[in-house]
Amino acid sequence: MTIKLIGHPGSGPTLRVSMTLKELGLPYEFEVPADRQAIKTDDFLDNKHPFGKIPVLIDGDFTINESRAICRYLASKYQGKHNATILIPTDVHKAGLASQCISYESFYYDPAITKIVHQEIYAKKLISQCISYESFYSDPPLSKLVQQEISAKKKFNKDPDQEVIKQAREELAKVLDVYEKILEGKEYLNGEFSLADLFHTPSTHYIYSMEAHSKLWDSRPNVKNWWNRLRNRDAIKKVLDEIKS
Amino acid sequence: MTIKLIGHPGSGPTLRVSMTLKELGLPYEFEVPADRQAIKTDDFLDNKHPFGKIPVLIDGDFTINESRAICRYLASKYQGKHNATILIPTDVHKAGLASQCISYESFYYDPAITKIVHQEIYAKKLISQCISYESFYSDPPLSKLVQQEISAKKKFNKDPDQEVIKQAREELAKVLDVYEKILEGKEYLNGEFSLADLFHTPSTHYIYSMEAHSKLWDSRPNVKNWWNRLRNRDAIKKVLDEIKS
Ligand SMILES: N[C@@H](CCC(=O)N[C@@H](CS)C(=O)NCC(=O)O)C(=O)O
Ligand SMILES: N[C@@H](CCC(=O)N[C@@H](CS)C(=O)NCC(=O)O)C(=O)O
Repeated sequence: MTIKLIGHPGSGPTLRVSMTLKELGLPYEFEVPADRQAIKTDDFLDNKHPFGKIPVLIDGDFTINESRAICRYLASKYQGKHNATILIPTDVHKAGLASQCISYESFYYDPAITKIVHQEIYAKKLISQCISYESFYSDPPLSKLVQQEISAKKKFNKDPDQEVIKQAREELAKVLDVYEKILEGKEYLNGEFSLADLFHTPSTHYIYSMEAHSKLWDSRPNVKNWWNRLRNRDAIKKVLDEIKS
Repeated sequence: MTIKLIGHPGSGPTLRVSMTLKELGLPYEFEVPADRQAIKTDDFLDNKHPFGKIPVLIDGDFTINESRAICRYLASKYQGKHNATILIPTDVHKAGLASQCISYESFYYDPAITKIVHQEIYAKKLISQCISYESFYSDPPLSKLVQQEISAKKKFNKDPDQEVIKQAREELAKVLDVYEKILEGKEYLNGEFSLADLFHTPSTHYIYSMEAHSKLWDSRPNVKNWWNRLRNRDAIKKVLDEIKS
């Protein structure tokens, strides 16, 4: 039975699922929708994602959406079947603590990073990346490449709001201070690697690639080691290398 | 072994855990921290919640925080033991779809409601409720009741930002339109009741109690029936009655 992932290589939530698939040793097909309109059709809304979003996973005759839910599903169904990697601990207490760190990611870590990434993405230096985002994020959607370029220049060729970035960086620094303590004497957030760590990877990858912000990680020894450990895991490295090429 | 819930009756995340405990038929002790300072001590940060938040659950010698993680833990460990209520389906596909609707709650439903509740809570008509929130939300914390009253009047005796409310209502209306479709022909979001439905209850309770907003639910037949079904469940009704008295 083939697993199909519908998503976009420039989408963090999509990467979250790719990384989970790779960690579990699961082969899959990757499908990129033609443009933003393709995920707003009646068929897509009725059968793939009622909010018109990617990623969506199709596993035989089973369809599921929302990145974190997809990853939980994949781990519950497939972990330990193709390799020895365990992403959700089998012990109920350890699983509880993994969910706890998943919650930190969803409600403290990710929101702070998202604010910064959204600002930076409007900056001139990121124009080329933005053009590929354009088909997903613009409203109304643009379907032709030339339109995309014009619009990207118009929309993105302005400076990010430094005040928003400053505040979000302070918020993020507080979160990372907590992580520095959590990670003391540990390789991963819950000791052993789990979905909790993996969920942090896409957003960290985006923001860490911006020189101005990577120091937030590098200046905290435990956080720095954790991030290096994460991005150098075979499965994660493969996914990150794939989107580079 | 006693289960202890550290929280506040005026906190939505705390209610989420109380409702789960009641649904599972689990007796528990309830502890309310003296004030906001009590959840920012080194002891609390080191041993209860590193971000200094409630709720926290202590189950024998096991401590866990973050409402949605606590509820998942409780269901995984205790469901079916004290009564027949199942909150996380045992089938891996059904569990996946419950996680999917949990994600809708966390990333679409809750954020829209929170924007409105945060505005309304500053309105004059809610002053008395705010005084009890004050010890948790004010910064710096106030410990004496008289200080609380003065500060609440100063901070809350102003009108909510109608433009923010208008936009959040539009966002929420779109989310509820999707729910109306999801709920077509179903009693609960995934057919059978699960944590996915329960997670929506505290925020819905707060906003639905404001007359200006309850029509958003009541004007959509499936959503209206779902909400009435939810708030009239024995366990949920008990928790909501307790905070009224
Ligand atoms: N909570 C969702 C977020 C998905 C999401 O925001 N996807 C974006 C691409 S990264 C999307 O589909 N945007 C199109 C739109 O919202 O119209 C998840 O984790 O899967
Ligand atoms: N994501 C957390 C949110 C917890 C939360 O925001 N709790 C509030 C009370 S409702 C709190 O402790 N606020 C005190 C503070 O942030 O200082 C959960 O679901 O448990």
